[in-house]
Amino acid sequence: MRLATFRGIGEPAATRRVGLVVGDSSRWWLHPFADGTDLLALLTAPVAERERAADEAAQGDGLSAAEVVLLPPVYPVAMRDFLTFEAHVDGMERGHGNPGPPAAWYDAPVFLFMAPHAVVGAYDDVPMPPDTAQFDFELEIAAVICRDVHDVTPEQARDAIGGYCVMNDWSARDVQGKEMTLKLGPSKGKDFATTIGPWIVTADELDDCRDADGLLDLRMSVQVNGRRLGSDRSGHMGWSFEQLVSHASRASWVKAGEVLASGTCSGGSLAESWGRNGSLTPAPLQVGDVVEMTIERLGTIRNVVTPQRDTVAAVAPARRRARVAESA
Amino acid sequence: MRLATFRGIGEPAATRRVGLVVGDSSRWWLHPFADGTDLLALLTAPVAERERAADEAAQGDGLSAAEVVLLPPVYPVAMRDFLTFEAHVDGMERGHGNPGPPAAWYDAPVFLFMAPHAVVGAYDDVPMPPDTAQFDFELEIAAVICRDVHDVTPEQARDAIGGYCVMNDWSARDVQGKEMTLKLGPSKGKDFATTIGPWIVTADELDDCRDADGLLDLRMSVQVNGRRLGSDRSGHMGWSFEQLVSHASRASWVKAGEVLASGTCSGGSLAESWGRNGSLTPAPLQVGDVVEMTIERLGTIRNVVTPQRDTVAAVAPARRRARVAESA
Repeated sequence: MRLATFRGIGEPAATRRVGLVVGDSSRWWLHPFADGTDLLALLTAPVAERERAADEAAQGDGLSAAEVVLLPPVYPVAMRDFLTFEAHVDGMERGHGNPGPPAAWYDAPVFLFMAPHAVVGAYDDVPMPPDTAQFDFELEIAAVICRDVHDVTPEQARDAIGGYCVMNDWSARDVQGKEMTLKLGPSKGKDFATTIGPWIVTADELDDCRDADGLLDLRMSVQVNGRRLGSDRSGHMGWSFEQLVSHASRASWVKAGEVLASGTCSGGSLAESWGRNGSLTPAPLQVGDVVEMTIERLGTIRNVVTPQRDTVAAVAPARRRARVAESA
Repeated sequence: MRLATFRGIGEPAATRRVGLVVGDSSRWWLHPFADGTDLLALLTAPVAERERAADEAAQGDGLSAAEVVLLPPVYPVAMRDFLTFEAHVDGMERGHGNPGPPAAWYDAPVFLFMAPHAVVGAYDDVPMPPDTAQFDFELEIAAVICRDVHDVTPEQARDAIGGYCVMNDWSARDVQGKEMTLKLGPSKGKDFATTIGPWIVTADELDDCRDADGLLDLRMSVQVNGRRLGSDRSGHMGWSFEQLVSHASRASWVKAGEVLASGTCSGGSLAESWGRNGSLTPAPLQVGDVVEMTIERLGTIRNVVTPQRDTVAAVAPARRRARVAESA
């Protein structure tokens, strides 16, 4: 089942409705669920109950793509971004002059917490962020959490994953690079926009897409201005999403409404090519570029890069502290 | 005004009430506000209106410290932790064999997003996290955001800061160090517990504590088992909280209910001493240790380190990907 969050064209900006997706990526309709339907509650409902609600929705009139604005399927209560694609790490490390992934990469799935309030919808415009001459995309697959868990095994984690969607973790590489020299984050390099969508495909719908080790194995690809720049398969992740949830939950909470993302697949960013090529080839994203990402069975997201918006001025450099005698 | 979130002893674990704090750090009472009072709404209310609500609360019976459990003043919708104390960065960098803060540190206030669901109350026990032989504390001052802002100047940011509290950003240094070699996060090194409290002191209450540049200047200190291990002043931050909010809001959202923290003050962690001393001196935290932090005007938090809880097993190392021909 595919579940979208949307508002009708002309409805107030704060409107959030939940719809059943019917059709395919190129031609689809949304059948609204009853007013007040909660997407996370649908994800945790027994399959039979969810199917009943969907059957009811399907009997109503559908709205065409032209009649709606797709919103982020969830407004995350927290976001974690992992680093699970070995070949991506390999390319990035070569860009830093290293021979390949460090040994520590293999030991456990490392991740960072991301800006949770930066999510944008599948077809929203994305303004160029400030301070960057190296604007980039990151093609990722993301899981939406539907139950609160703490210290769960991968097997137990399965019930906590409500579904999956496509994610573009937009990245200002020069901003991010500076932050990473300070060994924190990155944060400002990624806090302006993260596309998630176009909708959530429920986990039960993808049981036939698992490989022998139980990993979801879906084709992933990215095009810029209609030219394919990279592709990979989610089966190339070093860990399954159930393992990522288990790791995240070790002595910690993973809560309903969180989003956990795979990290960039191989070929899923320009920076990986920059690392391998030793130059900014292909060119960084420019205003007007159309970035389109497709994951098999999950759908397509497509965002246009628009001009930078007015931003507040950067803050002044640090006030240098002549250390004074401590009187505390 | 000091505003606490609490539940009465014996009340259901999910109870959250808001109380006015009366008395001093060593002997205090909570006067509950009317049922359903929202702490963030109190912080955004005009001062006169907040005072009226407080006067009404003060007329009711007060609850003694023995009758309540202090909860985290807010359950953050996101948390950012900055790195604003030059002398702390200096000590940590020396631990890495570097001569002092890198030039990039002075340019802009770097931060990371933190686990938002790990907050614990001022006097809660903190179980030893798994996988660490280098358990540490971090003494910080934190601001609580009460309005949604995007692209605000430091002057405009002032109204978005509802108040301040003490924070202990508990850190497993060996876990964190491994994550930082992968240039992400850190995350698992800090996602098990973050103490915030004991309550929020509203920003208007601290107007007399600002230095000539407008920075809050409050004494900060930490004791372990009654022995003072470090102290500093919040006036040694490289930027004001208003500047931190402005920077965070540049092309991004900072929302009501977020917590922004200063980062560790100088002397506010063991790791800084380890860096300067070239050895694990003073010793890492052990079960039974009592960590007490006090910030002038904000109050005292005190947590006991308790034995590690049962945790789920660590996940298996990455499945190594023999790169297969890409058929996407």
